[in-house]
Amino acid sequence: MKRLPLILATAAILLSAATAHAAERHEIAFPDLPGQKTLKCDFHMHTVFSSDGKVWPTVRVDEAWRLGLDAIAITDHIECQPHKADVPTKHNRPYELAAGHARILDILLIKATEITRNLPPGHFNALFLSDINPLETKDFVEAVKQANKQGAFVFWNHQAWQGEERGSWRDVHTTLYDGKLLHGMEICNDLGGGYFPTAHKWCMEKRLTMVGNSDTHAPDLRKKSAPGDHRTLTLVFAKQRTIPAVKEALQAGRTAVWFRQQIIGRKEHLAPLFDKCVRVERPHLRNENVVWTKVRNVCDLDIVLKRTGELGPMELRLPARATTLLKIVAKTPDEPLDLKYSATNFLIAPGKNLDVVLRVGCVRDAP
Amino acid sequence: MKRLPLILATAAILLSAATAHAAERHEIAFPDLPGQKTLKCDFHMHTVFSSDGKVWPTVRVDEAWRLGLDAIAITDHIECQPHKADVPTKHNRPYELAAGHARILDILLIKATEITRNLPPGHFNALFLSDINPLETKDFVEAVKQANKQGAFVFWNHQAWQGEERGSWRDVHTTLYDGKLLHGMEICNDLGGGYFPTAHKWCMEKRLTMVGNSDTHAPDLRKKSAPGDHRTLTLVFAKQRTIPAVKEALQAGRTAVWFRQQIIGRKEHLAPLFDKCVRVERPHLRNENVVWTKVRNVCDLDIVLKRTGELGPMELRLPARATTLLKIVAKTPDEPLDLKYSATNFLIAPGKNLDVVLRVGCVRDAP
Amino acid sequence: MKRLPLILATAAILLSAATAHAAERHEIAFPDLPGQKTLKCDFHMHTVFSSDGKVWPTVRVDEAWRLGLDAIAITDHIECQPHKADVPTKHNRPYELAAGHARILDILLIKATEITRNLPPGHFNALFLSDINPLETKDFVEAVKQANKQGAFVFWNHQAWQGEERGSWRDVHTTLYDGKLLHGMEICNDLGGGYFPTAHKWCMEKRLTMVGNSDTHAPDLRKKSAPGDHRTLTLVFAKQRTIPAVKEALQAGRTAVWFRQQIIGRKEHLAPLFDKCVRVERPHLRNENVVWTKVRNVCDLDIVLKRTGELGPMELRLPARATTLLKIVAKTPDEPLDLKYSATNFLIAPGKNLDVVLRVGCVRDAP
Amino acid sequence: MKRLPLILATAAILLSAATAHAAERHEIAFPDLPGQKTLKCDFHMHTVFSSDGKVWPTVRVDEAWRLGLDAIAITDHIECQPHKADVPTKHNRPYELAAGHARILDILLIKATEITRNLPPGHFNALFLSDINPLETKDFVEAVKQANKQGAFVFWNHQAWQGEERGSWRDVHTTLYDGKLLHGMEICNDLGGGYFPTAHKWCMEKRLTMVGNSDTHAPDLRKKSAPGDHRTLTLVFAKQRTIPAVKEALQAGRTAVWFRQQIIGRKEHLAPLFDKCVRVERPHLRNENVVWTKVRNVCDLDIVLKRTGELGPMELRLPARATTLLKIVAKTPDEPLDLKYSATNFLIAPGKNLDVVLRVGCVRDAP
Repeated sequence: MKRLPLILATAAILLSAATAHAAERHEIAFPDLPGQKTLKCDFHMHTVFSSDGKVWPTVRVDEAWRLGLDAIAITDHIECQPHKADVPTKHNRPYELAAGHARILDILLIKATEITRNLPPGHFNALFLSDINPLETKDFVEAVKQANKQGAFVFWNHQAWQGEERGSWRDVHTTLYDGKLLHGMEICNDLGGGYFPTAHKWCMEKRLTMVGNSDTHAPDLRKKSAPGDHRTLTLVFAKQRTIPAVKEALQAGRTAVWFRQQIIGRKEHLAPLFDKCVRVERPHLRNENVVWTKVRNVCDLDIVLKRTGELGPMELRLPARATTLLKIVAKTPDEPLDLKYSATNFLIAPGKNLDVVLRVGCVRDAP
Repeated sequence: MKRLPLILATAAILLSAATAHAAERHEIAFPDLPGQKTLKCDFHMHTVFSSDGKVWPTVRVDEAWRLGLDAIAITDHIECQPHKADVPTKHNRPYELAAGHARILDILLIKATEITRNLPPGHFNALFLSDINPLETKDFVEAVKQANKQGAFVFWNHQAWQGEERGSWRDVHTTLYDGKLLHGMEICNDLGGGYFPTAHKWCMEKRLTMVGNSDTHAPDLRKKSAPGDHRTLTLVFAKQRTIPAVKEALQAGRTAVWFRQQIIGRKEHLAPLFDKCVRVERPHLRNENVVWTKVRNVCDLDIVLKRTGELGPMELRLPARATTLLKIVAKTPDEPLDLKYSATNFLIAPGKNLDVVLRVGCVRDAP
Repeated sequence: MKRLPLILATAAILLSAATAHAAERHEIAFPDLPGQKTLKCDFHMHTVFSSDGKVWPTVRVDEAWRLGLDAIAITDHIECQPHKADVPTKHNRPYELAAGHARILDILLIKATEITRNLPPGHFNALFLSDINPLETKDFVEAVKQANKQGAFVFWNHQAWQGEERGSWRDVHTTLYDGKLLHGMEICNDLGGGYFPTAHKWCMEKRLTMVGNSDTHAPDLRKKSAPGDHRTLTLVFAKQRTIPAVKEALQAGRTAVWFRQQIIGRKEHLAPLFDKCVRVERPHLRNENVVWTKVRNVCDLDIVLKRTGELGPMELRLPARATTLLKIVAKTPDEPLDLKYSATNFLIAPGKNLDVVLRVGCVRDAP
Repeated sequence: MKRLPLILATAAILLSAATAHAAERHEIAFPDLPGQKTLKCDFHMHTVFSSDGKVWPTVRVDEAWRLGLDAIAITDHIECQPHKADVPTKHNRPYELAAGHARILDILLIKATEITRNLPPGHFNALFLSDINPLETKDFVEAVKQANKQGAFVFWNHQAWQGEERGSWRDVHTTLYDGKLLHGMEICNDLGGGYFPTAHKWCMEKRLTMVGNSDTHAPDLRKKSAPGDHRTLTLVFAKQRTIPAVKEALQAGRTAVWFRQQIIGRKEHLAPLFDKCVRVERPHLRNENVVWTKVRNVCDLDIVLKRTGELGPMELRLPARATTLLKIVAKTPDEPLDLKYSATNFLIAPGKNLDVVLRVGCVRDAP
């Protein structure tokens, strides 16, 4: 570097000219819950430092900015190092290379890794580490213990991507679980096969925290997150937008997963989230026994409701970030009306949707 | 109709099946001002009932719904009736045919017409009429008087579309103005040539209300209003979302015009509008004399700022509905900083931009 | 009109300024067959002159231009005239009003109407008429006879949109069919419910010509025809791009229907159409028993193939207007390979797909 | 790797599942010239192996496939190696890592490098190398000689990105030029400032080959090349689609540059290219002295023509891959008409556009 100072300086100028106007950031529209911020997080992704990762660590920060994420964890594999002839193994480097860029872009970057053993037991991510090197050890349970020693949050990745048989619950999982060494599971993963109902069931039964992540290896070509084209993400309901607050919320199980056109999580979180996403306006017209009102969906999910009660259309589609007209035929249109629906893409257990009520008030005075 | 009841009934079923799920409405993002609602309005458009209008009146209501408009006026020409062999002249019919549909979709439909005489004096729209027929009279000034007798708001359309000479201010305009029969001018019009600086100047000098409209004749193919593809619209700062409140605001001159990638209006309205559109977050990082913060533009205009003071980047682009990273080099980064800019697409007089200040607070504690 | 010549002249200038640059036309990519042009046609649409049509007749011509259509028929209802208080019934006017515009834009405009009776017998379109008025007669069969007297091509519309029971084959249909008064059926219709398998079956059994149409009443908001968003259309395999040639091809049954992501028609037309749409390039790489080649799909359909033979991937997706990489594992890669597939979206009878063979040649010399 | 065979195998399965359906390729529409293929090439791009490159070498091949490129050169810097603590310097590795993937995707991958010295003399790319290591030598001219010894094609990159003063022609350039060691210049470069008129002028005067390239460092987010959003590319008019043919064409100067909404090159190539891009159909209508015809633009450039003769509209816009209606008023519409235009975005020298003639034939018989 000493030999060529001007070259490097000019190259730096060339590059900074190109990136002077950083790409714009498009926030993802899922409202905060009362007293909690809804943080959009991806806890599973790779770089050239492991597996078949194809990008430099800073690219993951650029993507997080552009796509509206709040927190990410780069989780390069400890064991799977096929590039090591060209990129020598250094477990802490992806974090170190990305950290300064993350601070500038205000992305919460969590130091993390993927512990990648044979199936079973499978692959596990450990978040909130201070040093990844101690996890490189022959014994799998020992590696997980090393992570826990650092206060890590540990979750089991893409449980069923090699078939239910390989993703079955073994003694080793009981050892982890009973020792409080395992804290969550991926119930969705973009790369490894989508949605895992068995993982979902176990999270409900064992009070493990549900997470959903991209597991991305390639560059993400998206320019923004859209209802029909987004990464699988974990929504974390945190007290603040800080790394410790993310950790506290993960430990407390306050999460939901945004997977394709669905939100998956616990009823206690999905019910208030739905109420914040959907706003029924005061009706603007009544014509005998027919009432007309508008419903706004302020979130990034195209919500689909099926009627379970007596009132309202059989199916009600509420496109993301849009206003929908709602026509109700009612015997008593001069009283507030409760419309009972099942929110088909708010999943509160495998196969079970959230029940919701749209309350329609009395007609406002004509304009 | 009596001969074929079943046919009509089945045709009605066929149609209602097709329109059962009315298109979604996409709200336009311009925030309300303190104490006033920012209504998005188009006061100039045509149907098959005049000129070369190509759509049935209800289509204009469907468009208003889809594109996020609050209020529209269908302004078919009194005089220009080239379709009259096929659609006999009936001045009140466009309103009558569209009114019920507008009530269902909660669009404020204003009864209106276009008085279309030779140039000069030009074309004039009269809004808030109760009966259009009395305006069909030979004498132009008499027609405008008839409109005023009904309490109309009258404005001069696309002043310069036939060249400045034909759009010049004549005695007849003085007659109208002195008689308080003329209340506003179109300073922008999609069809008739864009932006009219002379009209803009006259509005400033004579305290005429500024409006901007589409003058659309063809079907509007847009599915939503977008920063780079929208109708010219009048933003009306009204006390409520009602027709009388629109009228009061027009009479009081509380408007701005959204024309292509610009907002044009009076400083007293554009200054608070800018403040509601642009939110500077509390800085998230300070590194010696460099401060980093995020700026959110919550409106549907891509705002472009040029620096007029000492601090901040020379040019600052704030894309619509997005977050932009802002880097400031400052001698005193531990005090709040005032960044002085000219908002190049907030026009407060012909050739004159709004001056704005972005106040950047002190750095928040690191996450 | 004599009273206001200048106004009309200036209005005309205003309009011509706005339409001086007519919208661009986007051709639809379905290749010609050997000796025949593949014309893209829509034989069913409405205007303000009937039913709940919402546009002026020239709008249908503008749409045809923009969307890449070759021929259209405006088919306003004879009987269903709910606008007649505002637009007096004149059956020949939609054609007359649109004809000059169609000549300028080189759209083949077919004079036509919809005979709209109770169900059964249902609704029928008659194309290639010289005068629509004689079809306004009480007796349904008489109306169809009047159409045939003028040499019309008559087809039964949206057979099943009121349920199979109402769309059942009755004596009256036998009367028409035996009298050679009925020549085709809509097997698909955008408005009236999609795809009609019973109509499809009858077309196969009775050698009726298959057509598919939009039945559009509202303005068409599309800016171009796209694989995932297009009108239902009839592909007519005609000897020339003329109205008589369209008629000859319809009479001879040389059609297919482009319905959503499918092509439906007779094997004798779909087989050569597939061959023209899909081009297998000469393989560019062989590595032991693996051969790599490129496949280009030059049409506007995303083609999906399922393997029925021994070679090639189980499923092969060929996106519209794109090139797909094809990897074949073969025992004898040094000989030309025949890959046998079922084209899942080329339908040659209800429930029956076209069988196709992709012939992969020998590897070309390495670059 | 021996320790963990199953893990790696399963990771490989995971990845191959994710990439089983390689992204589709979208060809770029610039027609071949008579006897020559029009290859779309990018001869300047970076990876993690140098400078601030952010992607693994195979990503550049994936991009070339997706964006419709025929040939690429990965040109990592010899001298600028800021990542070398993490990715040790190995000049031939980017090529080696990408070569197999390029063969599978049929992308012509050219072994190349960027010689990056102080300004002046500036940065130079050397293409068609067999071994990059000998170019790592202190003396700049010696490095270029080493490249030429391997038969390289050498061009000067982004001549003016550090200001005309630093991009001025010095003795060292004369040394290279007179020694036939320098063969071309970048006249356009996405990263380094756009279009360089001085480089363009020198290419004309000195018969240097014109190239235009992306110089991309970041992942390319584009899903396809579009008229309004594409990389700067070199169009190479080659006898075949092979690497030797690309080299022969570069040496012979048979290139043009696609830069934003322009094609820049020599008249001898742009004239036949224009003729292949624009097809005037036989007129379909004549009405007294007015003739109507259609013009198809089959390429990916929105062509803009200004009239230089007597006939045709003053300005004629021909959108990419679309058909435009053309209306001509002529005294002698019964003879073929020659419409003379300047093609404003076909640049044949700095500030000089290509003159073209659209020949409009006689009207075909009416349909």
